[in-house]
Amino acid sequence: MSFDLLQEKIREKKNPTVAGLDTRIEYVPAHIREKSFREHGETLMGAADAVWEFNRGLIDALADLVPAVKPQAAYYENLGWPGMAMLEKTIRYAKEQGLYVIADIKRGDIGSTAQAYAEAWLGTTRVGGTDCPVFDAHCVTLNGYMGSDAIQPFLDQCVAQGKAAFVLAKTSNPSSVELQDLVAGDRLLYAAMGELIERWGRGTAGTYGYQALGAVVGATHPSVLKQLRRKLERTFFLVPGYGAQGGTAADVRHAFDELGRGAIVNASRSILCAWQKTGKDGLDYQDAARAAAIQMREELKAHITIL
Amino acid sequence: MSFDLLQEKIREKKNPTVAGLDTRIEYVPAHIREKSFREHGETLMGAADAVWEFNRGLIDALADLVPAVKPQAAYYENLGWPGMAMLEKTIRYAKEQGLYVIADIKRGDIGSTAQAYAEAWLGTTRVGGTDCPVFDAHCVTLNGYMGSDAIQPFLDQCVAQGKAAFVLAKTSNPSSVELQDLVAGDRLLYAAMGELIERWGRGTAGTYGYQALGAVVGATHPSVLKQLRRKLERTFFLVPGYGAQGGTAADVRHAFDELGRGAIVNASRSILCAWQKTGKDGLDYQDAARAAAIQMREELKAHITIL
Repeated sequence: MSFDLLQEKIREKKNPTVAGLDTRIEYVPAHIREKSFREHGETLMGAADAVWEFNRGLIDALADLVPAVKPQAAYYENLGWPGMAMLEKTIRYAKEQGLYVIADIKRGDIGSTAQAYAEAWLGTTRVGGTDCPVFDAHCVTLNGYMGSDAIQPFLDQCVAQGKAAFVLAKTSNPSSVELQDLVAGDRLLYAAMGELIERWGRGTAGTYGYQALGAVVGATHPSVLKQLRRKLERTFFLVPGYGAQGGTAADVRHAFDELGRGAIVNASRSILCAWQKTGKDGLDYQDAARAAAIQMREELKAHITIL
Repeated sequence: MSFDLLQEKIREKKNPTVAGLDTRIEYVPAHIREKSFREHGETLMGAADAVWEFNRGLIDALADLVPAVKPQAAYYENLGWPGMAMLEKTIRYAKEQGLYVIADIKRGDIGSTAQAYAEAWLGTTRVGGTDCPVFDAHCVTLNGYMGSDAIQPFLDQCVAQGKAAFVLAKTSNPSSVELQDLVAGDRLLYAAMGELIERWGRGTAGTYGYQALGAVVGATHPSVLKQLRRKLERTFFLVPGYGAQGGTAADVRHAFDELGRGAIVNASRSILCAWQKTGKDGLDYQDAARAAAIQMREELKAHITIL
């Protein structure tokens, strides 16, 4: 239950990396795109088909190296319903290859609506007398601005189905300061959100001591990682902002506990777009992605030992 | 530009109501559901087909009464890609019937991802050399927890295409107090968010003086409505929480300026589910929805005069 499954996969692969499937159509090598466009035209369907082909190749290339993938919903939504169909296929295929799937949706809405979202992404939707699985990921990301009403329906699904969710605390982007760094009482707002996350998750801890509700804390703020790691002992961290956004292995080691557990670091572009740096027009995209994932694993290994 | 189109439609219909298309499958009358299930089985496709039939009937029934509809994305996502296809159809059909469409998505993510969302919901996605429209609503709802990075790409689309967006300030749900009512400096957090919204929107005001970035402020907090209306002179309000959640016409009048402008009030269940109270098994769902919409218009008219 909780984050146990993720932590076990991390230990098994000795790699606390999640590969972000932020698959913009421009990131797909030309030979894949052209094949899809020949078949479906320059349409949303054509783009979605190319994204799916690329994702499948990436999953095949990475499945023995990384414990998890994180598709970013925006890059499927912007291809309309064909994109959402390919997101469903991507999640299913990644699970079949033994990967843990975090759907990066950052949803947040009032109770009954949050319940519909929770059914869509972690549970099943009731149609007549039939329970239909929909996107059926292992884990999602959430936005807690609306308070526990927006979180509890997801937490209920997590507990019922051994799943988990990450709530935004301190994000990696520059303008995160505008709201998240406001002074709220004797701490900053992101710390207040962190406390709420740990409080909401109470009573859901798994074998490794982490609750079913984790927190998103950006790699671009190492001192915040250190501070929140100390304060939120039962909260698993998802750490974006590594690489392209500036976070280093030395920065993100603060997200881990003394046993090298309790966190996972995201990399998207550095793996997806690794082929753009080898001068082979993307024909080697699988090898390039593998090489980038291995390099990141080794960088992290130099700073973090996972017991 | 900005909220001009919405304000004009409100004045034309003399009705500041937006009908929420929060179309849960359980809200669809049995005769529509059964027909869809006979054709497609008790599947996501069957449910999506029923939701679309119901939406089309509601839009036909309401198009001369209300200025706007607001489909809630969660109730389409939880039907997977068939649900998203029906959401696209619903938005297109509502626009064809002259309605202003607010896609209630509450998205919020970092810059490049926010851009993909903005393309999906307000703009177009570039596929090869072709610009493809996707959901193409007039307006969306957003979550500003991540700061201006999450908002600016939408604002750019708003300015380029005469569209608009609402950002969550103070939501109508009970647990909104947990974060939104934290003390931040000399005001509460929702007021700080309100100030950010008005600042982010600067320079985008339309004919009626309202900027392209509005705020969501719940009907369940009339004193907050009054306070924010005074403070945020150029910010259009979307007001949820009327009816089922407890907000009255006397409460929501505080959302409007002295000319009866600058706000729109949402009603979902009271209109969608009006048929459940007439004892006719939903065969009269269009008449029941019309009657509920007329009743709400008259309630609002008793407190708000739109000039």
